[in-house]
Amino acid sequence: MKSQQRRFFNLIKYKEALSKMKKAIPNRTLKEEKIKSVKSLGRVLAENIIAKKALPDHDFAAMDGYAVKTKDIQNASKNNPIELNSIGELYPPDHPTKVAIEEFEATYVACGAPIPSGADAVVKVEFTRRDKEKIIIMKQIEKNRNIAKIGEDIKKNEIVLSKGRIIRPQDIGLLVAMNLEFVSVIKKPKVAIISVGDELSKPFGIPSNKIVNNNAYIISSLVEYFNAEPIIMGIAKDKIDSIEHMIRTSLEKADIIITIAGCSVGLKDYVPDVIKKIGDPGIIFHGISLSAGKGSGVAVAKEKPIIMLPGHVGSTVATFYLLVTPILNMQLGLGFCDLLPNIRGLLAEKVTAKPAIDLVLPVKVYKQLDKYRIVPLKKHPSILKNLTEANGYAFVPAGTEKKKNEIIDVKIFGGLEFFNIVS
Amino acid sequence: MKSQQRRFFNLIKYKEALSKMKKAIPNRTLKEEKIKSVKSLGRVLAENIIAKKALPDHDFAAMDGYAVKTKDIQNASKNNPIELNSIGELYPPDHPTKVAIEEFEATYVACGAPIPSGADAVVKVEFTRRDKEKIIIMKQIEKNRNIAKIGEDIKKNEIVLSKGRIIRPQDIGLLVAMNLEFVSVIKKPKVAIISVGDELSKPFGIPSNKIVNNNAYIISSLVEYFNAEPIIMGIAKDKIDSIEHMIRTSLEKADIIITIAGCSVGLKDYVPDVIKKIGDPGIIFHGISLSAGKGSGVAVAKEKPIIMLPGHVGSTVATFYLLVTPILNMQLGLGFCDLLPNIRGLLAEKVTAKPAIDLVLPVKVYKQLDKYRIVPLKKHPSILKNLTEANGYAFVPAGTEKKKNEIIDVKIFGGLEFFNIVS
Repeated sequence: MKSQQRRFFNLIKYKEALSKMKKAIPNRTLKEEKIKSVKSLGRVLAENIIAKKALPDHDFAAMDGYAVKTKDIQNASKNNPIELNSIGELYPPDHPTKVAIEEFEATYVACGAPIPSGADAVVKVEFTRRDKEKIIIMKQIEKNRNIAKIGEDIKKNEIVLSKGRIIRPQDIGLLVAMNLEFVSVIKKPKVAIISVGDELSKPFGIPSNKIVNNNAYIISSLVEYFNAEPIIMGIAKDKIDSIEHMIRTSLEKADIIITIAGCSVGLKDYVPDVIKKIGDPGIIFHGISLSAGKGSGVAVAKEKPIIMLPGHVGSTVATFYLLVTPILNMQLGLGFCDLLPNIRGLLAEKVTAKPAIDLVLPVKVYKQLDKYRIVPLKKHPSILKNLTEANGYAFVPAGTEKKKNEIIDVKIFGGLEFFNIVS
Repeated sequence: MKSQQRRFFNLIKYKEALSKMKKAIPNRTLKEEKIKSVKSLGRVLAENIIAKKALPDHDFAAMDGYAVKTKDIQNASKNNPIELNSIGELYPPDHPTKVAIEEFEATYVACGAPIPSGADAVVKVEFTRRDKEKIIIMKQIEKNRNIAKIGEDIKKNEIVLSKGRIIRPQDIGLLVAMNLEFVSVIKKPKVAIISVGDELSKPFGIPSNKIVNNNAYIISSLVEYFNAEPIIMGIAKDKIDSIEHMIRTSLEKADIIITIAGCSVGLKDYVPDVIKKIGDPGIIFHGISLSAGKGSGVAVAKEKPIIMLPGHVGSTVATFYLLVTPILNMQLGLGFCDLLPNIRGLLAEKVTAKPAIDLVLPVKVYKQLDKYRIVPLKKHPSILKNLTEANGYAFVPAGTEKKKNEIIDVKIFGGLEFFNIVS
């Protein structure tokens, strides 16, 4: 009978892991695809948007009021009202040449209406009084007042939205205003998720002694949450063939492959062996001096990254944030970084990281008396409940101690977490 | 010919507006619906989740190693190895009664395997050596070490997730672990969006003198972004009948009705007149001492809130955040509040709010040298480009001035914005 321990980890620091990944993983942004602008919320813009027309594309009234010649109403005030002749009315759909004004004439313009030729400003309705065909102006205004000028918002040929931005609601408004029905965005990375372990069972089946494979669903939700498309591959047995088959299929279907469990030092931890068989360069590193997440590793095969996440849920999630998000963001054209929001707050309790092992600690951040408070959740890291109480994590370097009431930085798990933090 | 100004605003303060809304709008959370747990990301949980079983539901090995009796290996160390007899191996799917150990015996347990009866701790593989049928233990450990105990994560009948939380990836993991295929969530509020104005044209049509109705798409994206379901009703003409028909249809289809434009003091601003016709109590207030957003208002008809947003895009978006988000969150069971994340930073430039008018100013927040910098975007508020540069807004009370380099609070538009802020 052979040794029960298949390998030993050669632990490296997290920073070193990141730099090895950056070197070894093909640095490519995924291809673009054209989608409907109005459905592009949250996607990454893949092209510079250049204004094909000015916005507005003609001068128009920014307020309901009277279009006038400013030289006619100099010194107008409540005590010095100036009378003009009212000629016509203009509404937004009207053509600008419908009306033209001469000296001491004014035209009613509804907000959005074109400006009649001859007029150089709009007096708001509030500062006018109507007397049959006369308009009494009670305020002097400067030239161009209350006129939205052509190109005031956007000039023709200006870059209005730059490549690489995450599309937000207001950006969709701009795309629509530019009459762009379709927009190029970066394809969502496809992420295959392989769970490994004879002990695992599919969820929602007949209860058994097996462990429900919930980690795959946490990871698939995280993948979705970070702008990518999860493919749940299912459960591989603790057998070389089963794991190999699933990884090979995943390499055909996905841009990124995640394996969960089966990568530790145990007798049946075959994932690293399988990866070595599949292709060069294979394993980039395996083992990080991290708690939780020590047994994680990254490989490259057929030019695609394979990330081995440990099976304990705390480690699975921590290493997703630490190792997977930079790869996702790189493939989305956002750079090799996690892009997680950072919050600075008061630590509620002392935290100590052991020598030589960086600590990744789930924390609960909340707001109290206008300050952020950070509560370390020190329970066993494999505990799922810990994570449901957490909304971020603190990274405590090996051998350091953070004191109670010390101000520290934490990474927030993502935008959804703010609903818990701000209340 | 009648007066060109149909009405005057009776301006109230924003705070007063909120308290009037809170009183007048029926305080109700929408009904629940059952959906698949694995598809519940971002939804609001409508039930307390009570653990029907403990997690883990039996003791198991938290590491690959040897299950032992701790009293047999007292004082074991590298220099004092203790020899045990190896009997059998246990893997995760095995039944716990498969193996039992007696004095000076040990069983190999893979991570996740049940603990054989008689054992009270697991020695990690790293601290053992195998010699045929003997196991040499080189470390003393305490009782329960490396054993995940029944109920350690979750106790039976414990509330594991409380009603009213936004479901995050890790929460989905817990639902799956609890074998809950379906979960009750609050229905998404349906929000009808009515654009008003003869000047508007549908987007992506033949270019014309009309203005492309882009505001509806900004608002519909915002609605989606805030966990609700937009219904774009289209463009109503500046005619009583057209507006009335669209509002009445919307009241049948939606939980919240938003009108954009047609609510100012101009000749053809019929929205308030229509609302007065439709039902009691009708208009709750119309006009807030705000810039931008002065012409906004809120009404209630057929027990549903109708929010009148002004048509200038800066005002439309500002009043969406100020007036609509609290209603959305209330109907989602999250309370009458905006829930927007707050960031504190250094103001890049002096900002002054006129007397009697609170200022809602789009700002660009970015991080520099570990500090948030806040750049006010002072261009005309109706300018769309302003909003695409902004990622939040500052609320500057009437008559106050914020100095350059003063520390101020700003509201961030939402989670997506953090991609721009943290980089």
